[in-house]
Amino acid sequence: MSDNYTPPKVWRPNTESGGQFASINRPVSGATHQKKLPAGKHPFQLYSLATPNGVKVTVMLEELLQAGFSDAEYDAWLINIKDGDQFGDGFVALNPNSKIPALLDSTNGNRVFESGSILLYLAEKFGAFLAKDPAKRTETLNWLFWQMGSAPFLGGGFGHFYAYAPEKYEYPINRYAMEAKRQLDVLDKQLAQHEYVAGDEYSIADMAIWPWYGVLALGRLYDAAEFLQVQDYSNLQRWAKQLDARPAVQRGVLVNRNWGDGAQLPERHSRDDFAGFIQK
Amino acid sequence: MSDNYTPPKVWRPNTESGGQFASINRPVSGATHQKKLPAGKHPFQLYSLATPNGVKVTVMLEELLQAGFSDAEYDAWLINIKDGDQFGDGFVALNPNSKIPALLDSTNGNRVFESGSILLYLAEKFGAFLAKDPAKRTETLNWLFWQMGSAPFLGGGFGHFYAYAPEKYEYPINRYAMEAKRQLDVLDKQLAQHEYVAGDEYSIADMAIWPWYGVLALGRLYDAAEFLQVQDYSNLQRWAKQLDARPAVQRGVLVNRNWGDGAQLPERHSRDDFAGFIQK
Repeated sequence: MSDNYTPPKVWRPNTESGGQFASINRPVSGATHQKKLPAGKHPFQLYSLATPNGVKVTVMLEELLQAGFSDAEYDAWLINIKDGDQFGDGFVALNPNSKIPALLDSTNGNRVFESGSILLYLAEKFGAFLAKDPAKRTETLNWLFWQMGSAPFLGGGFGHFYAYAPEKYEYPINRYAMEAKRQLDVLDKQLAQHEYVAGDEYSIADMAIWPWYGVLALGRLYDAAEFLQVQDYSNLQRWAKQLDARPAVQRGVLVNRNWGDGAQLPERHSRDDFAGFIQK
Repeated sequence: MSDNYTPPKVWRPNTESGGQFASINRPVSGATHQKKLPAGKHPFQLYSLATPNGVKVTVMLEELLQAGFSDAEYDAWLINIKDGDQFGDGFVALNPNSKIPALLDSTNGNRVFESGSILLYLAEKFGAFLAKDPAKRTETLNWLFWQMGSAPFLGGGFGHFYAYAPEKYEYPINRYAMEAKRQLDVLDKQLAQHEYVAGDEYSIADMAIWPWYGVLALGRLYDAAEFLQVQDYSNLQRWAKQLDARPAVQRGVLVNRNWGDGAQLPERHSRDDFAGFIQK
């Protein structure tokens, strides 16, 4: 990285390393190979990975089941993004953007992609975790969209440059650390006024925000707790721990997880799959 | 910017320049001063600026009016982000995230923030530009959320490092140029199959995506047309020009604009305000 760089007139792909995940970044979209997606017997077929965006959806599905919506049963299949599973033609047909999570509603054949869209789809389908009162519904959607537009600065920005880039570059780390702290402060001030992000009811806004900002506050993302001084956001801490104690959240974070030292559940096809991992 | 940077254990604000817009970036949220928002007589009070996110909403409001929904009349007030208007307590009460656009529905007092949330709110309020058929509605929302999660890589990533950062840094420019081209290709392939982004109907997904990717394709964003070779995306070009010819789009791009050589309309309070700017 040079201080004296002059961009060319026309950008060309750089074959040098782009850090961890460089192999899966491409300047084009679409399928690279044929690969059918597996399918199980449940109404929902989820193709995902236990990244923060993936966890949003598995938490939602587990919350729906916990709340008694047995029609929310699902098969969760692992999409190994380092192996390029997201570029198989079956996955691309479900999500032309080649990102997890992607959901197939087998009851009607609908494809649903983008984690925020999936949360809204499920909330509306089951009439759950999204208030019917218009003002509360609007506030919940405000925060759901806030998460979608904000987290790319935390994940694609801060997380990339702090944890994954091939070198530590000062300017982008500073830029994105400042924004990450601003976002943490936005949430902390909101949670000083309300039990949950969008008000007094647990909602899809919490489920969207917790896997990024809650997990960050709990010190489990990017090893950045000290750098960002996450302990200072006391209201966010209170909320993060509150959600962390929910049985459905504890199940959701395990699904489609195939790394780390702790419990893992690369595929999930029934409640029984959690036996032995969590005692609840 | 050094290749040998080691982040400190605890991040501290850097007082050096962060490029254009550095003065408005802060590591904390909330109001910095008291400032009431102005209010007009129309049902909707919009506080915004003609950035791509702002234009999404003014295009939607102009499309609603064009389609005959006279209850969509609005006052559009300028939020000068370089002057810090977004940190006034009136604005922060409407959007605690201190970003434009923010909308007040004066018929019920609802606050609506995040451009995607505003588009969805207006679409549902008027039953317009969002299909009622469940499958089509789902696909539209997929692409609306796609825009929210993708454009931060184009705007906060590529745009910042290519156009606004204090120096040209090679690694982030490469990283975000690759992603910008991938996103352009995702849209190009989708628009090869469909007249509009979400299918055969013009929708809020188009209105969300055009101000970023359509305007980029037309060579009006970041002076990056040659660098990204936007002319190669022929289906995206066809769609970008098609929307650019719509009278409501031509009005929408002028609202809350207070810079550039062309037409400007810093505030908009009636259709008559456009007289002299556009002949349609």
